[in-house]
Amino acid sequence: MAQEQDNSLGEMNAYLRTELPLTTAMGIEVTAWDGQVVTLGAPLGPNLNHADTAFGGSIAALGILAGYTLLYLVLRERGVSNKLLIQRSEVDFVRPIITDLRATAHLPPAEELEAFVESVQRRRRGRVEVLSEVWSGGMVGARHRGLYIAILY
Amino acid sequence: MAQEQDNSLGEMNAYLRTELPLTTAMGIEVTAWDGQVVTLGAPLGPNLNHADTAFGGSIAALGILAGYTLLYLVLRERGVSNKLLIQRSEVDFVRPIITDLRATAHLPPAEELEAFVESVQRRRRGRVEVLSEVWSGGMVGARHRGLYIAILY
Repeated sequence: MAQEQDNSLGEMNAYLRTELPLTTAMGIEVTAWDGQVVTLGAPLGPNLNHADTAFGGSIAALGILAGYTLLYLVLRERGVSNKLLIQRSEVDFVRPIITDLRATAHLPPAEELEAFVESVQRRRRGRVEVLSEVWSGGMVGARHRGLYIAILY
Repeated sequence: MAQEQDNSLGEMNAYLRTELPLTTAMGIEVTAWDGQVVTLGAPLGPNLNHADTAFGGSIAALGILAGYTLLYLVLRERGVSNKLLIQRSEVDFVRPIITDLRATAHLPPAEELEAFVESVQRRRRGRVEVLSEVWSGGMVGARHRGLYIAILY
């Protein structure tokens, strides 16, 4: 199981590096996935702003990507071949992030998730909201709410 | 005047490259400022996603930065020395962006702008909302709404 998870994360990281060059520039890595929560990390250095805290654009990108990664992994585990896109993104910047960045995204409530997967499978597309946080050490630095759309292919 | 503007943009771009390393990775450049609208550009290449359109994270970052740049230039022109941060960011992704990216941000309505500047000067901090668009060729690809806070120092 640990081995399976490692493979899954290794593939995910290779996919991000290949398909999303900005993730390399930002130093983003998917570090954990337990079937409920996915965790991504990125060093502060390439994501600094003029105030020597994390750039808002990096935080938004990491929040978007955390939700994206969660849905990607969930749909892949269920064998649903799809194209996944973001439709709406909202970020509340709660406090400056002064450490390396860490983002966590959570499975949507079971009913919403099942309705989403069923919609993708039956109607070829589905929408679902995913919440993520970007952390400054042990404290929430930003809250992200993403609306994603998956299109079957 | 044209010369003044060029100097102003040159300084702005140097500032972004120095203070926000991700802008270099994204290839972002401030290309125009006429006192009402600021325009930023970025090539599609480093900002691509898995669907060969612009990555949502890049779009969000560019939208955030467009509003930031506008306020930075406005406050500098008025000689208000400040630290500027984003507090809230919302992006609606209207259509895939399939060209090099261009973002425009607009001066807030005059009353809101004056209230903001006065608040920064008198109460040492002010908040204002700035709208920006990220374009796919001649069509709006995404709309960004940013709430910014400026702190006098």
